Amino acid sequence: MALATTENNPTSSARADGARDARFGPAVALSCRECGARYDLGPSFACNECFGPLEIAYDFGRVTRERIAEGPTNIWRYRSLLPVPEDVATKPNMAPGWTKLVNAGNLARELGIRSLHVKDDSGNPTHSFKDRVVAIAVEAARNFGFHTLSCSSTGNLAGAVTAAAARAGLDACVFIPSDLEQAKIVMASVYGGRLIGIEGTYDDVNRFCSELIGDELGDQWGFVNVNLRPYYAEGSKTLAYEIAEQLGWRIPDQIVIPVASGSQLTKVDKGFKELIALGLVEDKPYKIFAAQAEGCSPVSAAYKAGHDVIRPVKPDTIAKSLAIGNPADGPYVLDIARRTGGAVEDVTDAEIVDAIRLLARTEGIFAETAGGVVVGVLRKLVASGTLDPDAETVVLNTGDGLKTLDAVAAEARPTAVIRPSLDAFRAAIA
Amino acid sequence: MALATTENNPTSSARADGARDARFGPAVALSCRECGARYDLGPSFACNECFGPLEIAYDFGRVTRERIAEGPTNIWRYRSLLPVPEDVATKPNMAPGWTKLVNAGNLARELGIRSLHVKDDSGNPTHSFKDRVVAIAVEAARNFGFHTLSCSSTGNLAGAVTAAAARAGLDACVFIPSDLEQAKIVMASVYGGRLIGIEGTYDDVNRFCSELIGDELGDQWGFVNVNLRPYYAEGSKTLAYEIAEQLGWRIPDQIVIPVASGSQLTKVDKGFKELIALGLVEDKPYKIFAAQAEGCSPVSAAYKAGHDVIRPVKPDTIAKSLAIGNPADGPYVLDIARRTGGAVEDVTDAEIVDAIRLLARTEGIFAETAGGVVVGVLRKLVASGTLDPDAETVVLNTGDGLKTLDAVAAEARPTAVIRPSLDAFRAAIA
Repeated sequence: MALATTENNPTSSARADGARDARFGPAVALSCRECGARYDLGPSFACNECFGPLEIAYDFGRVTRERIAEGPTNIWRYRSLLPVPEDVATKPNMAPGWTKLVNAGNLARELGIRSLHVKDDSGNPTHSFKDRVVAIAVEAARNFGFHTLSCSSTGNLAGAVTAAAARAGLDACVFIPSDLEQAKIVMASVYGGRLIGIEGTYDDVNRFCSELIGDELGDQWGFVNVNLRPYYAEGSKTLAYEIAEQLGWRIPDQIVIPVASGSQLTKVDKGFKELIALGLVEDKPYKIFAAQAEGCSPVSAAYKAGHDVIRPVKPDTIAKSLAIGNPADGPYVLDIARRTGGAVEDVTDAEIVDAIRLLARTEGIFAETAGGVVVGVLRKLVASGTLDPDAETVVLNTGDGLKTLDAVAAEARPTAVIRPSLDAFRAAIA
Repeated sequence: MALATTENNPTSSARADGARDARFGPAVALSCRECGARYDLGPSFACNECFGPLEIAYDFGRVTRERIAEGPTNIWRYRSLLPVPEDVATKPNMAPGWTKLVNAGNLARELGIRSLHVKDDSGNPTHSFKDRVVAIAVEAARNFGFHTLSCSSTGNLAGAVTAAAARAGLDACVFIPSDLEQAKIVMASVYGGRLIGIEGTYDDVNRFCSELIGDELGDQWGFVNVNLRPYYAEGSKTLAYEIAEQLGWRIPDQIVIPVASGSQLTKVDKGFKELIALGLVEDKPYKIFAAQAEGCSPVSAAYKAGHDVIRPVKPDTIAKSLAIGNPADGPYVLDIARRTGGAVEDVTDAEIVDAIRLLARTEGIFAETAGGVVVGVLRKLVASGTLDPDAETVVLNTGDGLKTLDAVAAEARPTAVIRPSLDAFRAAIA
């Protein structure tokens, strides 16, 4: 698939004169994150000049809190900050977002933190944050005339894509490592479309998709995290918008975010910066902390070694949704953690399980292994003094414990199984 | 545990002079559904006079749409219609509700219905409608000074109770049939508290809890669906409120509701009637249809036989969350279906699985078996001409497919598992 050029891209629709294409709302161009080269809006993801990743450039105009508050209780309330048309909410879509920001007072007390909130994205339609990014990609796929929605996935994305495609009336063909959790496989299958298991790691799946996108087989397919990635990735900004709005239009002092590809973390940072630039929140410093599983911690390893380059690893962790050994946005995560005064930390599988159970018994939130990584890293950062216990803190739970039951199944069992009699009960609880 | 009396109930707090107890908001008394006898508000559930079930009586005063719309995006926006204090939202709670009312255009087209919405309660914190009822019960438990929250459960309720107890800082001890789905067992365990598996059916578990509540072991325990049942059950009214508000303050023409104990259906009816009485919606007729699984269809059997009395059955169905063989509110369900011009219908396990897959591939909603029962019954009612395809229809999805994976696991599988090569992919999709 040819990349877009500035001058003459047949799939592009933005005008060189800066005139808006209403289908993309406030988005006006694709911009190279590395060299700043600008391209018309199209299904492109890498810079022709330097091969850097492309991201969306906007001309926002005036955006007000009041206008946002009048919108629906989903991500479309922020449509004036996303590459989507004004009427996006009227088309069949999953309407993700506006998930709970839970005041986690019990967990805060247990960890010795003054103020802690959990942004709980298990409340999204397919129970992970992926519904946010996919919703934007669906709109891009519509705009570019793609009939099939595709992706490489560690599981959550596959389910989000097949569900969204079903609702939107698009075909779906998604690719996952074949050894994923059963819940994720069933969920990605049940919505219809094709689910292809690949014998290999996520990185193998990803390489396969890159091949496929260059082949006629994958022509006219929208790969949400490849050729639609600039659009898709913007969906993660809504986490930043919602957290700020739910805190009463305020950016927290520090936030802990899980890292798989690293895209989510970079976009939360972008979202906060946009809110400041638009005057929607007060300008203030904030620290971004990145969380990885020890069994797949290439970014954490680079951070601790003081490197700028990420050395790919072969993942071996129960946190399969974070098991990306060669994270595309890893270097940007390092930049952001260092620039904001945050850090990158990792935890073991045992610490992940402990953290899932800690969050569940204190706040009634049953997180996926990725959420266990975040809470485990939070605990570790507090213990090491890296995270300020007196500053306002937010952590992300990006997925649902029901999808990673095996992580806790050995310990989350009935206290007792008894006959239905008071004597048996007495004996059981004695 | 002694039942409340009108005159002098030590655990009661409502005044005989009608003065409000602010802890219960607009609720003023318990009222017998059979004989109308009134009792002070207390942890009581059956009438001293006739053993009929007690329910909450209110003095609402004036309630406006505007006041409701100013509230939070959860059930507490309807706090002026529930037995809870004005400040209920400020206490640690799960903040359930305000789940999506999905415009199910794809499914409507497939079934030949003009207008269809799915009220999708899989979006609740523990992914079933039970979070609604438990949230009210927690508040009642606080008011009555109970330190332990308990219940008999077919699974969803157990998870909702243990999660809510964790958040609220209460102890939990919950009881389930020991043969439930693994996801429900893990979920009910992970939040802490005690989970007791009972060797037997839900009805055995329920009988055991009735024994326990009379024993010193269960003293000072709040059994959400026994001694707190009048409060708990009111939570289901919020389904009616939300549906009406989300339709633009309008009651649908017809609604299909699953029946386990039957409580939910009776309270949706109560909710609609309250909205009409308060002038919040236009007064109009509506039909309520009840849905059961053939393997546990005592209410459907009575309806079809023209009986007023429910003959208990021993359940045998994959819809375990509806597997109550002796449904307490079964006779009221019959009354409501007949009075409103609705019906009661049931579907086989195979029809349940088909319906789960139909809803998933048309709307991207992965329902629990109970949701399959509802969509299966909807399809059957349309086919038989019992349900008007031109009338505005709403169906409830009360739970989440991730909790009943086994129902669809045999069919929801990868299309293929291949090596990461284009040739292998070509062969797989040939």
